[in-house]
Amino acid sequence: MIILGIDPGLRTTGFGVIHKQGAKLRYIASGTIKSGEGDLPARLKVILDGVSEVAATYQPDCSAIEKVFVNVNPQSTLLLGQARGAAICALVSNGLSVAEYSPTQLKQAVVGTGKADKAQVQDMVARLLALPGLPGSDAADALGVAICHANSYDALALISLAGGTAASPLAGLRMRRGRLVD
Amino acid sequence: MIILGIDPGLRTTGFGVIHKQGAKLRYIASGTIKSGEGDLPARLKVILDGVSEVAATYQPDCSAIEKVFVNVNPQSTLLLGQARGAAICALVSNGLSVAEYSPTQLKQAVVGTGKADKAQVQDMVARLLALPGLPGSDAADALGVAICHANSYDALALISLAGGTAASPLAGLRMRRGRLVD
Repeated sequence: MIILGIDPGLRTTGFGVIHKQGAKLRYIASGTIKSGEGDLPARLKVILDGVSEVAATYQPDCSAIEKVFVNVNPQSTLLLGQARGAAICALVSNGLSVAEYSPTQLKQAVVGTGKADKAQVQDMVARLLALPGLPGSDAADALGVAICHANSYDALALISLAGGTAASPLAGLRMRRGRLVD
Repeated sequence: MIILGIDPGLRTTGFGVIHKQGAKLRYIASGTIKSGEGDLPARLKVILDGVSEVAATYQPDCSAIEKVFVNVNPQSTLLLGQARGAAICALVSNGLSVAEYSPTQLKQAVVGTGKADKAQVQDMVARLLALPGLPGSDAADALGVAICHANSYDALALISLAGGTAASPLAGLRMRRGRLVD
């Protein structure tokens, strides 16, 4: 299964593509889409076309995108929202399911603690995918959200196998929007 | 020239299509796109597909979209931003230029004062386009932003004719992102 992860941003959108076979994860590609200096509609088009091109190139089976922080500046929040909307549009218009994960869920999945910093995420993404060097911060987050989705996918399959009975150790967990919640 | 106006929203996106010939404006169509009760990616897809369908049906030459208020609730601002991003993506992916106007500019263009209320906008849109009844609030805003763009278009053409010389009464005006600024 090929998973496309997206770290959305107005200036820079990170993408990461991984292959999951059983518990084994393999790196396929990662990079960033820079929206340039045009007006807002032009920049959203760069994001839309860029993410679509990544999807067309690597033919993922599903996708995952990071939830974004609400900025202290409401105008920045509005701009970031529009950029994230453009990335999601590219994913859904390519027929991909889109799972959403918070930064805390991403860090928990990759580093093992929700309080990890950016450098720890980069380091662990490089280890988990056996990369020869550290990925950039945006690409690392995008690969991280793809890894997070790969792990959730296994957990969801286990719940399904367990049949959700009270005897199952997973019976207390519920799924909401593609992820586990208490 | 056919102008498509959009009033973006996560729950309801208004659209309005008008025909401009010289100073004469004619109503073509208006309505709303309801995003339904799905998860966020599904709702953004409804907006993307809905606005694209409107563009395909009425073949506008250009488009205009209302700027949105920053909400007191940052999460609402983020959601609204994503919805607006989806609408803009539909416009640019259909090859349309996208002008942006604030609610104040819209009210100024339609009612003559930036402090008009929703009912006044609905009433004046109905008069300007000789509608048999009042349009709904979202459709009225969408038609209003299209009217606003039609008026700006004339003003921009005048500036172009005046050649921007100091002798021109319009020489003190500048254009930014498709609209006039002091």
